[in-house]
Amino acid sequence: MRSLHKGKQSILLEHQPSILASYSVVGKKEGQGPLHSYFDLVSQDTKFAQSSWEKAESQMQLLCLQGVLNKAELSPSQIDMVYAGDLLNQCISTSFCLRGTDIPVYGLYGACSTMAESLSLAAMAVSAGFGEKVIAMTSSHFASAERQYRFPLVYGGQRTPTAQWTVTGSGAIVLAPDGAGPYIQAITTGKIVDKGIKDANNMGAAMAPAAYDTIRAHLEDLSLTPTDYDLIVTGDLGSLGKQIVLDLFQQEGVDIGSVYDDCGCMIYDLKGQDVHAGGSGCGCSAAVLCGYLLPQMIKGVYQKILFCGTGALLSPVSTQQGESIPSVCHAVSISAGRS
Amino acid sequence: MRSLHKGKQSILLEHQPSILASYSVVGKKEGQGPLHSYFDLVSQDTKFAQSSWEKAESQMQLLCLQGVLNKAELSPSQIDMVYAGDLLNQCISTSFCLRGTDIPVYGLYGACSTMAESLSLAAMAVSAGFGEKVIAMTSSHFASAERQYRFPLVYGGQRTPTAQWTVTGSGAIVLAPDGAGPYIQAITTGKIVDKGIKDANNMGAAMAPAAYDTIRAHLEDLSLTPTDYDLIVTGDLGSLGKQIVLDLFQQEGVDIGSVYDDCGCMIYDLKGQDVHAGGSGCGCSAAVLCGYLLPQMIKGVYQKILFCGTGALLSPVSTQQGESIPSVCHAVSISAGRS
Repeated sequence: MRSLHKGKQSILLEHQPSILASYSVVGKKEGQGPLHSYFDLVSQDTKFAQSSWEKAESQMQLLCLQGVLNKAELSPSQIDMVYAGDLLNQCISTSFCLRGTDIPVYGLYGACSTMAESLSLAAMAVSAGFGEKVIAMTSSHFASAERQYRFPLVYGGQRTPTAQWTVTGSGAIVLAPDGAGPYIQAITTGKIVDKGIKDANNMGAAMAPAAYDTIRAHLEDLSLTPTDYDLIVTGDLGSLGKQIVLDLFQQEGVDIGSVYDDCGCMIYDLKGQDVHAGGSGCGCSAAVLCGYLLPQMIKGVYQKILFCGTGALLSPVSTQQGESIPSVCHAVSISAGRS
Repeated sequence: MRSLHKGKQSILLEHQPSILASYSVVGKKEGQGPLHSYFDLVSQDTKFAQSSWEKAESQMQLLCLQGVLNKAELSPSQIDMVYAGDLLNQCISTSFCLRGTDIPVYGLYGACSTMAESLSLAAMAVSAGFGEKVIAMTSSHFASAERQYRFPLVYGGQRTPTAQWTVTGSGAIVLAPDGAGPYIQAITTGKIVDKGIKDANNMGAAMAPAAYDTIRAHLEDLSLTPTDYDLIVTGDLGSLGKQIVLDLFQQEGVDIGSVYDDCGCMIYDLKGQDVHAGGSGCGCSAAVLCGYLLPQMIKGVYQKILFCGTGALLSPVSTQQGESIPSVCHAVSISAGRS
């Protein structure tokens, strides 16, 4: 059962795993955005009854894990492995969430691309028969991210127009070899792309070339055109990064505008919610995929989507040392039916 | 080609990938230890001609990547994907190392278990046919780790007797579907184990129960006894953690002493090099495996080893918040011949 290995970066899965269940948890601000009615759990308490923001994020991820297990009617002991990670130093949200669950775990770091990375690796594991029930999961929290990457909240720092707002959210997916779908059809593994952007408050511009690079590789590797998808969705470039992706395709005469959107632009009302360029953070694309997009596929709104998680692989230290921002984008092709 | 999925945590690979090449880079102190003559590259300049410790670590990892590619006679464009990570916040050593190589990459965070984690995921990918040439890689650097996890070097802080010394080192392995071996036979994915140890200067005690848990699961899942291996090697518990693993097995009447060692105890002269409990850091087990153990297997010294990477999943923030240390251990069974 050797899977086809098409082109340089893409894998067309011979056995296409099924999504058994997806679950999303978000905070108060996300619960006031345009997708508010789609999330499985909206918490008005963004501290999730914990004593620190870091513990709050971990608790949120645990609620998401419990939620997806309930939805799939599975106990933790039935899960073969979890692929998960988050934005906090040493991925503590994930480690502390999974402590006590007794589920084998592979920790990941892909910055905001983590939902696509975890879904890629989980799909490979299930497709190859290394697990029967495998979870892909991630989270981010506005307050824990702000104080780690930028300033303590009480400092009241001004945000630049290109800055994005880290989503308080978590998403989790259970994959199995068979089921009613949607199905993971193909994955494209991202390369690290760095076009020299040094402004840590303009991650959309840093990540957009990585998104373009991976989407282009995916289409080329699998001989597809953009309109073979009902939706190509990046997560999360925000309004500026989204426009750069459109421009980069336009430059080679391809208009992807009719099928393209960005999770960072979808999760908030960009005009009314004071989030500047839009949402970011691992939890952004995770919550939009798990809460909104996958249920829409089940309803028949989309037949085929390309989910492209984008990550800015900077750290406060690399920024202080004057470095530019390396970025990555992993793409996962998801289909309502098996083709 | 469904792989056998034995027991809860272990996978016996049906198609067992071959190690095409391994490479190790270490710093000056490691070059003065008992394994000094085995490492592929010993740098007397621990700054690797860079302007910061973080850039030094990234450069060391790049030298390791170039070294393993040369040894395997491969160019970067022939590599399907890299699984890699490190200890620095946001894994910047890895991201900045891989920037410009054009190799598709999955970023990992497993603390000091990263060599075993990356090797596990690379072995699964190659075994299932998702890649023909896949690299597993990691690094750590004493100076970048000290200032991130503990104190700036110039502070001159005293170390406690149970403290370990972060290895300045990097290791990389190229896997392929076929070759002259050694071969990856099986993997066991670790669960997060936390026995309540809160002392961030006693990581050996925190990680030892995770090592015991995974080794036990591996032996049970695959119906093996410790002496089915010529060597069971943890990386890196240090002298105290090593003794705890021996004790935990002793408590159930199993003496693994004749086949058991720890990379953290092997890489330094514990009496002469002032490293207290021994070596730690992703680079420790990576350099010992790639520089010493795998070449010894090729020479026929070992037929079969169980490589058990151990990671303490703490962060300075979780320690400051009074949390205990969640730990993980991933095990990879490596054999000189295919069985």
